[in-house]
Amino acid sequence: MYPIDEAAPYPRNQWYVAGTGQEFTRDILARRILDHPLVFYRTQEGEPVALWGLCPHRSMPFELGQLRDDELVCGYHGFAFSREGACVSIPTSSQISPACRVKSYALVERGPWVWIWMGDGEPDHALLPDASDIGLGADPSGWRIDITEPFVMQARAQLLIDNLLDLSHLAFVHNKTVGPAPIALAQAETVREGSRLFVKRTMEDEPTTPFISYLMPDAGDRVWNELITDFYSPGLINAGGPWVWKSRPDGSRGEAVAKLNFVHVVTPEGPNSTHYFGVLTRNFRLDDDELSLAMAAQNDAVRREDIIALEAIEKIVDRHGDAKREISVKADEGALMIRRWMRKLIAEENA
Amino acid sequence: MYPIDEAAPYPRNQWYVAGTGQEFTRDILARRILDHPLVFYRTQEGEPVALWGLCPHRSMPFELGQLRDDELVCGYHGFAFSREGACVSIPTSSQISPACRVKSYALVERGPWVWIWMGDGEPDHALLPDASDIGLGADPSGWRIDITEPFVMQARAQLLIDNLLDLSHLAFVHNKTVGPAPIALAQAETVREGSRLFVKRTMEDEPTTPFISYLMPDAGDRVWNELITDFYSPGLINAGGPWVWKSRPDGSRGEAVAKLNFVHVVTPEGPNSTHYFGVLTRNFRLDDDELSLAMAAQNDAVRREDIIALEAIEKIVDRHGDAKREISVKADEGALMIRRWMRKLIAEENA
Amino acid sequence: MYPIDEAAPYPRNQWYVAGTGQEFTRDILARRILDHPLVFYRTQEGEPVALWGLCPHRSMPFELGQLRDDELVCGYHGFAFSREGACVSIPTSSQISPACRVKSYALVERGPWVWIWMGDGEPDHALLPDASDIGLGADPSGWRIDITEPFVMQARAQLLIDNLLDLSHLAFVHNKTVGPAPIALAQAETVREGSRLFVKRTMEDEPTTPFISYLMPDAGDRVWNELITDFYSPGLINAGGPWVWKSRPDGSRGEAVAKLNFVHVVTPEGPNSTHYFGVLTRNFRLDDDELSLAMAAQNDAVRREDIIALEAIEKIVDRHGDAKREISVKADEGALMIRRWMRKLIAEENA
Repeated sequence: MYPIDEAAPYPRNQWYVAGTGQEFTRDILARRILDHPLVFYRTQEGEPVALWGLCPHRSMPFELGQLRDDELVCGYHGFAFSREGACVSIPTSSQISPACRVKSYALVERGPWVWIWMGDGEPDHALLPDASDIGLGADPSGWRIDITEPFVMQARAQLLIDNLLDLSHLAFVHNKTVGPAPIALAQAETVREGSRLFVKRTMEDEPTTPFISYLMPDAGDRVWNELITDFYSPGLINAGGPWVWKSRPDGSRGEAVAKLNFVHVVTPEGPNSTHYFGVLTRNFRLDDDELSLAMAAQNDAVRREDIIALEAIEKIVDRHGDAKREISVKADEGALMIRRWMRKLIAEENA
Repeated sequence: MYPIDEAAPYPRNQWYVAGTGQEFTRDILARRILDHPLVFYRTQEGEPVALWGLCPHRSMPFELGQLRDDELVCGYHGFAFSREGACVSIPTSSQISPACRVKSYALVERGPWVWIWMGDGEPDHALLPDASDIGLGADPSGWRIDITEPFVMQARAQLLIDNLLDLSHLAFVHNKTVGPAPIALAQAETVREGSRLFVKRTMEDEPTTPFISYLMPDAGDRVWNELITDFYSPGLINAGGPWVWKSRPDGSRGEAVAKLNFVHVVTPEGPNSTHYFGVLTRNFRLDDDELSLAMAAQNDAVRREDIIALEAIEKIVDRHGDAKREISVKADEGALMIRRWMRKLIAEENA
Repeated sequence: MYPIDEAAPYPRNQWYVAGTGQEFTRDILARRILDHPLVFYRTQEGEPVALWGLCPHRSMPFELGQLRDDELVCGYHGFAFSREGACVSIPTSSQISPACRVKSYALVERGPWVWIWMGDGEPDHALLPDASDIGLGADPSGWRIDITEPFVMQARAQLLIDNLLDLSHLAFVHNKTVGPAPIALAQAETVREGSRLFVKRTMEDEPTTPFISYLMPDAGDRVWNELITDFYSPGLINAGGPWVWKSRPDGSRGEAVAKLNFVHVVTPEGPNSTHYFGVLTRNFRLDDDELSLAMAAQNDAVRREDIIALEAIEKIVDRHGDAKREISVKADEGALMIRRWMRKLIAEENA
């Protein structure tokens, strides 16, 4: 499947965001992730629960069932399941086979999100992305976090990953919403560090743009500015920028002003569709709700522009796309690295 | 195909309901049954006719044609066909090849329905279900018959058959419309008699429920009550109940009070969709139109609840359902018997 | 694929109409033809351009891009292409690989249409249909040409070709819009001349019909009348008629009165859908706009009737249609000839 060339178009042994913490309530939430039907809820004590979404009796989606205390009751014949997935009650039978159970999934709630492990074997907590550097760790102090509107995009996850790893598209897909952003077309530096990858563009000692002045009124007349894609994992990518430093009189990089981050959460729904969550984080004007509203509006428009583009590609890419024959340039370096790495991960999982 | 494991998901050598008698008129009715396009109409004398639905000339659906006396005239180039399916006129040709014909199907009009034989060879009239015991024989006297709203359900027929053979689902799928019905969770007795199968639940000498008092005001304070699934054929299943007898002072079963029947007609439209017809019959309060209206409203809501459940299962069952690994319990005994029998029928038909 | 029995359901080495000249503007027009995504526009000088519709970089549909002078700029990362399809600019790169290009297609603008060659090798101009005899050549003088409403029909092109080669369907599909047209059921004479095929029906010295009197008030009381299908190419078919001559007193064919032509343009969008363009031409009452409006209204209704019929056939033909077993009659002679010829063309293209 373009552009990965393996049957499975995404790695399985990863943490993915199942939803925001707010979505986990005492109502049953059904969601397809990695093409598996799942249901989510919270126990009375507030613990998030993830279970396989279909009753093992007659395949009824649990979405049509209900909660009874901490148990999930199927809406067809009333089979009830514990939060661990064991069948604990069958209305027409006093005997319960131990085979009557559904898979439960490890969850970790951190910051605004609940992460799920759907991989093989025990969850590998070392793989849980650590985004504490942009305010998304255990301690968010010093950061403003605004959750964005969630989308389900009718396009494969890799198209969104490719998109985020080449921000030169800002100048075209988003030229009306973002406005002129010369940094987007600056030469990019691509660095791989472990599983993380940075694609960084820098403007050195340039006149402060109107957008930076609007965001950071005390930035001064000349600044250093960075636009960075930070690939934490296949499920978490930050498009950071502007990141601003004052210029010293000699033009060298001076005091840090502030950072704004457009954080993109990519959770495959299935091979051809993607849950697209996100947050904005910033380490300045923390209490400025109006700024948050303005940025949310712009960000929402920007994400919709990407979705239009990626859904248009999705519609034709299986018939006409061929990663081997496509034309790539320097700006694709980061995306190509990640594709190679993901192909390797997926191949190993399926070996 | 779940849960039958044969290419064909339904037996062919059976009588199925093609429609209610009222649907057979002097207008052409097109309907897909067992995945074949058919057309129906009545002759001027009132005889129902069933023909293959496509013109043998250029495959035009006869649905877009018209009747000329008792002949069916194709709406494309005017080829006309007798009720036996022979081409009797071609506007541009005086010669008619004997190969120019369409299949006609045997029909039997009985009670509210017209039954069709689409099986191999001559129609086997011994297989026509005899439901005279619930008012659907040649003589309906003593019974009130109310035809229910017809549905086309986007789910395979077997899911509906499974559903009807385990009425414990009343307590969950229909708990809001039907209300508490403890009998639905009573132990079921399953009996196979020839091609017919009964799943019977009995409440012996219990206080009369409000629903029974509402239906049968003269039932008395204590009653015997039966809830029965009567599988006449893959196309006709009765969910009978309440069937009520007065209790004698010693608690034994006394005089019969009355029977109410929810009759379910299951006609596969294709592998993944089903014509779902039905009637209600009762042998009490025959002239009470208000009772009929009230029961029709409840019955309509109940059928819609089943359709929601079965369509939800249909959507995922081909990807995640596996009859071999599903968990079954005692209450599934009737459905499992019927599945085995139907697998055998289908295998023999395709041998 | 019915009825051609080759994988490709249409010949490739033909000229097809890409659109009317009016559709080629300074806005990008995206259209799928022969199942390939294409884009069209006009240069600033007015030359029509046709290019493969997807950017070779990341498969973005050019439909979401824009024009910059005569260049097409991709809406994703700004790659720009000349009208010949060469990449001429990449915003993030000063180097451009010669492999970075898209196919451009030969176009010929003639009369109301722009024709495209999507075949193998150099365009074969000898295959461009010459319809100058019905006013569609380089010099349209003496003819009135009215462009009809374009349709995209959800049916394979061959069904429309079959339809047009047997006009006996006028008496059935169009009996309400066209009215009685006995000529449609007259014996047809079928003549193949090179790649062109004529199916001609003639009424000799008959009383003038009301429709002919309405069109041609000076036709007289008795006329000769022809109804003709003229198959110029798989993409251009004229349904000509009435073509009228006055009768001489001895009943022989006298002076020509006038010709009316319903010209049908058939451009496969993909295997199961078809761009259906057209014009009406006539060599009488050239300035009569009211006549044009009246004929356009009738023609529009007639085409919609055909579309309803052909879309109904399309829906079932792959499951139930079989060209080998269908019943054909004398009136199908022209269609069968053309099918054989097209099968041969397609087989040769794929040899």
